[in-house]
Amino acid sequence: MSRRILVVGGVAGGAGTAARVRRLDEDAEVIMFERGSHVSFSNCSLPYHLSGIVRDCDDLVLMCPSKFAEQYNIDARVNSEVTRINRYEKTIEVKNLETGETYTEKYDKLMLSPGANPIKPGSIKGVNNDNVFTIRNVDDIDKLNQYVKKNNVENVAVIGAGYIGVEIAENFIHSDKNVALVEAMDQVLNPFDFDMAQIIQKELYDNGVNVVLSDPLSEVNDNHVVLKSGKKIDAEAVVLAIGVSPETKLAEDAGLKIGETGGIEVNHNYVTSDPDIYAVGDVIEVYSKIARSKTRLPLAGPAQRQARAAANHMYNIPNKNNGVIGTSVIRAFDYNAAATGLNEKQLKDAGISYDFVYVIPTDKVSLMPDANPLHFKLIYEVPTGKILGAQAIGKGNVDKRIDVMATAILMDATVEDLTESELAYAPLFSTPRNAVNQASLVATNLINNRYNQVPVTKVRELVENDAFIVDVREEDEYEAGHLVNSINIPLSELRERTDEIPKDQPVYLHCRSGQRSYNAVLALQGRGFDNVINVSGSFLGICCYEYFLDQTTDREKIVTEYNFE
Amino acid sequence: MSRRILVVGGVAGGAGTAARVRRLDEDAEVIMFERGSHVSFSNCSLPYHLSGIVRDCDDLVLMCPSKFAEQYNIDARVNSEVTRINRYEKTIEVKNLETGETYTEKYDKLMLSPGANPIKPGSIKGVNNDNVFTIRNVDDIDKLNQYVKKNNVENVAVIGAGYIGVEIAENFIHSDKNVALVEAMDQVLNPFDFDMAQIIQKELYDNGVNVVLSDPLSEVNDNHVVLKSGKKIDAEAVVLAIGVSPETKLAEDAGLKIGETGGIEVNHNYVTSDPDIYAVGDVIEVYSKIARSKTRLPLAGPAQRQARAAANHMYNIPNKNNGVIGTSVIRAFDYNAAATGLNEKQLKDAGISYDFVYVIPTDKVSLMPDANPLHFKLIYEVPTGKILGAQAIGKGNVDKRIDVMATAILMDATVEDLTESELAYAPLFSTPRNAVNQASLVATNLINNRYNQVPVTKVRELVENDAFIVDVREEDEYEAGHLVNSINIPLSELRERTDEIPKDQPVYLHCRSGQRSYNAVLALQGRGFDNVINVSGSFLGICCYEYFLDQTTDREKIVTEYNFE
Repeated sequence: MSRRILVVGGVAGGAGTAARVRRLDEDAEVIMFERGSHVSFSNCSLPYHLSGIVRDCDDLVLMCPSKFAEQYNIDARVNSEVTRINRYEKTIEVKNLETGETYTEKYDKLMLSPGANPIKPGSIKGVNNDNVFTIRNVDDIDKLNQYVKKNNVENVAVIGAGYIGVEIAENFIHSDKNVALVEAMDQVLNPFDFDMAQIIQKELYDNGVNVVLSDPLSEVNDNHVVLKSGKKIDAEAVVLAIGVSPETKLAEDAGLKIGETGGIEVNHNYVTSDPDIYAVGDVIEVYSKIARSKTRLPLAGPAQRQARAAANHMYNIPNKNNGVIGTSVIRAFDYNAAATGLNEKQLKDAGISYDFVYVIPTDKVSLMPDANPLHFKLIYEVPTGKILGAQAIGKGNVDKRIDVMATAILMDATVEDLTESELAYAPLFSTPRNAVNQASLVATNLINNRYNQVPVTKVRELVENDAFIVDVREEDEYEAGHLVNSINIPLSELRERTDEIPKDQPVYLHCRSGQRSYNAVLALQGRGFDNVINVSGSFLGICCYEYFLDQTTDREKIVTEYNFE
Repeated sequence: MSRRILVVGGVAGGAGTAARVRRLDEDAEVIMFERGSHVSFSNCSLPYHLSGIVRDCDDLVLMCPSKFAEQYNIDARVNSEVTRINRYEKTIEVKNLETGETYTEKYDKLMLSPGANPIKPGSIKGVNNDNVFTIRNVDDIDKLNQYVKKNNVENVAVIGAGYIGVEIAENFIHSDKNVALVEAMDQVLNPFDFDMAQIIQKELYDNGVNVVLSDPLSEVNDNHVVLKSGKKIDAEAVVLAIGVSPETKLAEDAGLKIGETGGIEVNHNYVTSDPDIYAVGDVIEVYSKIARSKTRLPLAGPAQRQARAAANHMYNIPNKNNGVIGTSVIRAFDYNAAATGLNEKQLKDAGISYDFVYVIPTDKVSLMPDANPLHFKLIYEVPTGKILGAQAIGKGNVDKRIDVMATAILMDATVEDLTESELAYAPLFSTPRNAVNQASLVATNLINNRYNQVPVTKVRELVENDAFIVDVREEDEYEAGHLVNSINIPLSELRERTDEIPKDQPVYLHCRSGQRSYNAVLALQGRGFDNVINVSGSFLGICCYEYFLDQTTDREKIVTEYNFE
C-alpha cells in the first residue's frame, strides 16, 4: 500500500518536501495544505512588487496547485488550514477556509512547515489599525500596494530595518514615496556589525530614506506614527517588519517539544519529538555550526535543504547535517551587502575569542570601468585562525567574496588556508590579490604578531585624546580631506622624516585603505619604532564609519572632508 | 651589514618579491632589474587599450621606478637586462639597454622572475614581418595600437584563441575591425572542455568574430594570412597569441635545474637548485594539487603568492604550499566564462577517474531583471566524490560560482559537502538552490546510482541512431523548437501517457534545463521503467552545443529552432 505523506505549509520547506518525496516514491500519496491562497511563491521577491520591478503580483507565484498536480502528482490545497494534529490516530484536522468545512486526513508521515508570523506587538497603540501592514505572502503585498495607490499615500513608515524593512523602504523610494525607516536598535541590518552597517545607513540616507535609529514605535495614527522618544513622523501607511515568530501553535497543541529558542525542536534528520512528524523551515530551531548552540534561521535556502533531508529520512537515505552558518545578501540602492557566519555581537554572546581585519581593495583593477572600493571584514578565531564570519559591502559583486567565506566556514578553513586560495582573476572581475587573499594575509600577519592595528571604530577616541596620528598619503590626498588632528608624512617621505615621529608614545598610521600605512608601520618597526599601530580600514573606512552619524546628529566632525572613493 | 637582494624581472613576481622583502627587512638593499621600459604594469589589462577602455597606455603602468624608490626604498632599474649569473661569485651581469654599458652586481639572495616569452614559431613563413605582433608589455600593445591606427588596418588576424587571443579579438571588434580568430585546435579557450567552449564560440560568432578552428597559421603576407588548409584570410595586421615559453635561458646558462615541463624547477619555498637563487612566476614549473604532477601556470595571482612565499623563506618564515589549482575567468562580449581545477582533457591525461554533471539554473530569480541561464559543469572524482574542477558560463556573475568551487578544491571538499553549502541568496543575486547546490545534489544522486544520464555531447549520436527521445516540456515549448526525432510528452501528461513509452529499449528524456526531465526519469523509474536516462544539459545545452558548428559547417541540424533563453 502506498504511503500517505501530509505536508503543512506550501512554500519553501513544504513544497520542497512534497517534491522530494515524489522523486523518491512515485507511489506515495502526497497532500500539501496551505492556509494562504498560494503555494510556492517567491517570498523574497515580495518587496519588488512595490516598485513595479515585479509588475504583476501573480508573477510572484512560481507554481500553482494545478501544476503540482500535473507535474508532481501532488495534491496542493490552498485556503486550507490545518487546525489540529491527532498524534495517536495519526490524523490531522483541516479547515477549508473558503467553505468553512472541516475534515480529517490520515498520515503515515507528517511534515510541519507552517513558517513564521510577522510580529505585531500589542504594546503599540493602533497596531491593528487599517493602515498597518505586515508582509508574509502575495496577498499581503498586494493589499499594501493597493492601499498605497487607492489612498494616494505619500508618506510611509517602515518599522524595523532588517532585510525586509530595508527592501521595502527602497522599493517605496523607487515609487516616489517619502519613507521613514524606524529601528529600535542603534543600527540597520542586524547580521552586520555596527561598523559595517554605517556604510548601508549612508547609502539609505543619501537616497532619501529617513533612517531613525534607537527609537521604537509606540503609536500608530491615521497620518503619523509616534516613537518612544516622542518624535512624530508623517505616515499614512505603516509597514511592520520587526521580525517573525515561529508558528508553533499546532505543534505545541499536539505536545511536540518546543526548543529553548521558541522553535520546534528537531533532530539530525528534522524529526520532531514524534517519530512520525517532521518539521523544517522558519518554524524550527537549528544548530549553529560556529556558536555550537541552538538558533533560528528563517531563510529560504536552508529550508529547502532541510526539506530534502527530511524527505530522505522518510525513505531511509542518510543525511549530512553540518549545522547552519547563516549567509545572506541584500541590495540597498547602489550598494550590495553580504554576510556569513557570526558577527562580533554574536561571537561575544557565544563567548568565542576572535579578532578581525578590514581590507578595502578595489573590486576590480582600478583601470577598469566601474571599479569601486570593496569593504571587507574578516573575523577569525584566536588563536586557531579558523574563519568565523565575514561581511562585505560595496557597489560590486560583494556576494562572491562572501560565498567563498561561507564555503571556507563549511570546510573549517583557517586564515592561513585562505592565503593560498586561487580565485578567478581578470581585470574586469577582480584584482590579482583580492579581498579574500588580502584579508587572510593581514590576519595571518596579526596572528603571528608581525604588527598591531586598531579598527576605524577607535579613531574618534584617538582624535579626542590627542593621539599621535600620521596620515601617510600624499599631500594632495591629505589636502582633499583628512583627520582633524593628524599630521601628514607621505610614505614617500617617511624614511627621511622619521625624526618627526616620537618614540615615546603610540603612533597611529593611516593612509587611504590601509595598504600604504601597513608598509609604513613595517618600515618604522624596522627602524626601531616599537609602538606604531596601523589603522585598519584607514581614511576610507573612517569616512564611511563617521558619515551617517555626522549627518544625523550634531556631534563634532573628525574629518575635514569625506572621501568615499 | 644589510643583505643584498637582487630581483630579475619587475612585474607580478619580481615586484611582489621586492615589496615583501622590504616589508620583512627595512635594512635590506633591494634592486630590481627589468629589461623592458616599465615595471609593475597590469599585463592582464593590455588588450583593453586596443578598444580604448584603457585610453592612455601610460595608465597601464601601476607604479613607476620613482615610486618604488620613494615608497619602498627599492631601486627599480628599467631597460636593464640581466645577461649572466655567476653563481660562485654570487654576482650578476647587467646590461643597460639605453647606454650599452655592462656592469656587475653582487647578491646575497637572487630572485628570478623573468616571465615567459610569446612563442613565434620559425616554421611560419613571414613570422618576423613588420605586421606581426606579439603582446607581452606596454610597449608591445602601444606598438600594435599605433600600427593599426597609422596604417588604417581594417582586417586583423588573431592567431591563438586562448584568453589573450579572445580578449584581443573582442577589443578589436569594439574598435570596428574585421577580426579573424585562428586556432590550431578544435576549440577556443583551452581551460574549458569542448562542450563548454561552444557557448563562447557562439558568442564570438554572434558578435562578428570569424572563428576559424583546427587550422594553424602557415604564412603571413602583407594583406593576408594563409592557413594550413590553404585558406586565405584578409589581414593587414597579425597578432600571435599562441602561448608563451618560460624565459629560462639565464637560469640554464647558470646551470640551474630545469624541470620536465620546461620551467625552472623549484622546491616547496621556490628555491631553485641553487640555495641562494629563487624563482617565481611564469618561468617556473609548479605542482598541480589535483593531477599530483608538475605543470606550468602563467597567471598573476599565483605569481604574487609565490613571490611572498619566496621572500618569507629568505627570512625563515615558513610557508604553506598546497600546489596549484588553476582558476581563471574571461569576459567575451556579453558572456562571462570561468573555470577552476582540471577539465576532462586534463583528467584523462592525468588518468584520474571522474564523472560530471551539467546544470543550467537561472543566475537569479527569474522574475528579476537580467536573469539569465547559468551553464555550470561540475567534475568530480569517482568514487570519492572529491571536486576536481568546474566551469561556468553565462551573462551573470559566473565567477562567483567558480570561486566557491576553487575554495572547495583548496579544502578537499566532496560533492556531498557542497550539498550543504549556504551561499548568499536574495532574488537579485541568486536562486535559493543555486548552481553549486544543484550540481552537487545531482552529483550526489549519481554517485548513489539514483538515476542515469547522458551529456548533451552524446545527443547527436542518439538522434542519428534513432534513439527513443522524449521531450517532456510543454507543447508550446516543443513547438518553438525541438530535437528532430524526439516525441513530446509533457511532464504534466507523462503519468497518463506511459503506454507511449517502450520498456524494451533505452528511453532518453530531456526538458529545457534538465530539471523536469529529472523528475520525469524518477517518475518513470517509480513506475517500473528501468532504462530511462536523463539528458544532462537538456534542450538549452543541446542548442548551445550545436549552434556554432551548425553555423560554420554544412552538417545537418538536429534541432528545428534554437532556443538559448
